[in-house]
Amino acid sequence: MAKTVECVPNFSEGRDSLKIERIVDSVRNNDKVKLINYEADADYNRTVVTLIGDPEQMIEVIMNMVKICLKEIDLNNHTGEHARMGAIDVIPFIPVADVSMNECVDYANILAEKIAKTYSIPCFLYAEAAREEKRISLPNIRKGEFEGMKEKIKLPEWAPDYGEQEIHPTFGVIGVGARDFLIAYNIDVLTKDEKITGNFAKAIRQSSGGYQFVQAGPVFLENRGHTQVTMNILNFKKNPIYRIFEAVKTEAKRYHLDVPSAEIVGLIPKDALVRSLKYYFEVEGLTFPKEADLNEICDFSTKYLKLRDFTVDKIIDYFL
Amino acid sequence: MAKTVECVPNFSEGRDSLKIERIVDSVRNNDKVKLINYEADADYNRTVVTLIGDPEQMIEVIMNMVKICLKEIDLNNHTGEHARMGAIDVIPFIPVADVSMNECVDYANILAEKIAKTYSIPCFLYAEAAREEKRISLPNIRKGEFEGMKEKIKLPEWAPDYGEQEIHPTFGVIGVGARDFLIAYNIDVLTKDEKITGNFAKAIRQSSGGYQFVQAGPVFLENRGHTQVTMNILNFKKNPIYRIFEAVKTEAKRYHLDVPSAEIVGLIPKDALVRSLKYYFEVEGLTFPKEADLNEICDFSTKYLKLRDFTVDKIIDYFL
Repeated sequence: MAKTVECVPNFSEGRDSLKIERIVDSVRNNDKVKLINYEADADYNRTVVTLIGDPEQMIEVIMNMVKICLKEIDLNNHTGEHARMGAIDVIPFIPVADVSMNECVDYANILAEKIAKTYSIPCFLYAEAAREEKRISLPNIRKGEFEGMKEKIKLPEWAPDYGEQEIHPTFGVIGVGARDFLIAYNIDVLTKDEKITGNFAKAIRQSSGGYQFVQAGPVFLENRGHTQVTMNILNFKKNPIYRIFEAVKTEAKRYHLDVPSAEIVGLIPKDALVRSLKYYFEVEGLTFPKEADLNEICDFSTKYLKLRDFTVDKIIDYFL
Repeated sequence: MAKTVECVPNFSEGRDSLKIERIVDSVRNNDKVKLINYEADADYNRTVVTLIGDPEQMIEVIMNMVKICLKEIDLNNHTGEHARMGAIDVIPFIPVADVSMNECVDYANILAEKIAKTYSIPCFLYAEAAREEKRISLPNIRKGEFEGMKEKIKLPEWAPDYGEQEIHPTFGVIGVGARDFLIAYNIDVLTKDEKITGNFAKAIRQSSGGYQFVQAGPVFLENRGHTQVTMNILNFKKNPIYRIFEAVKTEAKRYHLDVPSAEIVGLIPKDALVRSLKYYFEVEGLTFPKEADLNEICDFSTKYLKLRDFTVDKIIDYFL
């Protein structure tokens, strides 16, 4: 399989649809990089773009996006609810196929250096690409935002990883990083009582002592009439979804509540599904069929992981 | 119930039984503080003493122990496998009954100040009592040990929390802290395959992405002929034992392995048992009887938590 990364640039325009289209056009029509989707948020005044494809081509595509954003966005005139420090605020590389995290860190370095050299836009490396503890957290770097960065970048401890200690006057600075794929996973709990579902979230989430790569909270779904444990799984290898699903079912037993189904929001790698499907096959004394294709994996996910509304185009590998 | 703390001073003598007895004698015969046990380790050349009782009296008892250790131990002549920086190396306060963690931090401060003033032995506050991030970890403070502390204590960032920047010439320095009760909990897995049991340990322990207050590893029990997941649970409120037990059973299902029993090494608070017993009662649609006495709780623990070789004198509250 060809080397494949996901890249999720966030740019600071979420209202002017003509501008948004012109910027998104800058990443269309590349043979080796596919635009999976883009979501503009008017309140945030920000658009999140999901791309997957060849890493070298990805760098070219993003360079093109930087060029267009430089023309289209002036952060001096930008307001919105989401914190931001650049016209493109953040560019994470995420390993998808045949690419290691270390390689993604390399791609982040190559891109950051190229942006800084070509466009005089300073870049900070964050997450797995960070070179210092305090730069792992993007919000930590971004503190002060575009406006505060003018002075902050002059401090010795906040010199950018690439570029001069001077923000670009209209573009600002960019956070370029590498991180693991993040799965948005929700488990249905057949109660209206958000407090109980909140207890399940507390049992499994990192912030209350639970699994280290799970962020979770309760939510009530108005139109379905029940609650969910809504989650981000930041590392599906260390915290596989079967383990989280079973942990929630274990907690639900004491309340005699039904946990009939779950859902994936956005995309999930085939590998994340297969790791958890294998568990249920083995529990039943079966061997997971190595040759299973994406449609079969989709069916198995409905049957064993109880994923509702699940379709094959939610599996990243479908786009490869 | 009366305010009760546990205190586990570790002193640096584990070979000379006469000396050990004289030191342990210094904490006997107090009406309000009970000596639960003491374990000397010759390789470590160190003895661990477990005391429980009234916090104010505990401070007096420990002051007496310091006085005797000052006479009996000269660290300049001490060798052993365990790192140490003081004749009494470490004194943690642990809340047991009607005492908050904040109060234990207060007791640590009172004791540390008293030791520093009375005997000119500098004290460092650690764990929950630490005043700085880098003093939370005792090994971090202790790095360099008795020998290195002579210079280390003169560095501005390693000034002690109480006392002068000068070690006691024969006693060294002490780490005085406050921490939660630590439960040594082992789950039996009926396989000889340490690799499989190691997978279960990885699934649940903090260091591999599991529960935040669980340290775990596999071990093969020669005389029983099977493996165990051997654990420390550092916070039984956030990581209750039923949750860990059920998580291991969930993992074992894929290997079709039996997980018939578990054991507690040392002591466990009644509260830790009751929290987990409640889970199993509720799963069965029952309410845990509030009036259950320690003998009943002991029987329930055998029945529901599958604790083998469990006796009432393993429950801390038995000594209260």
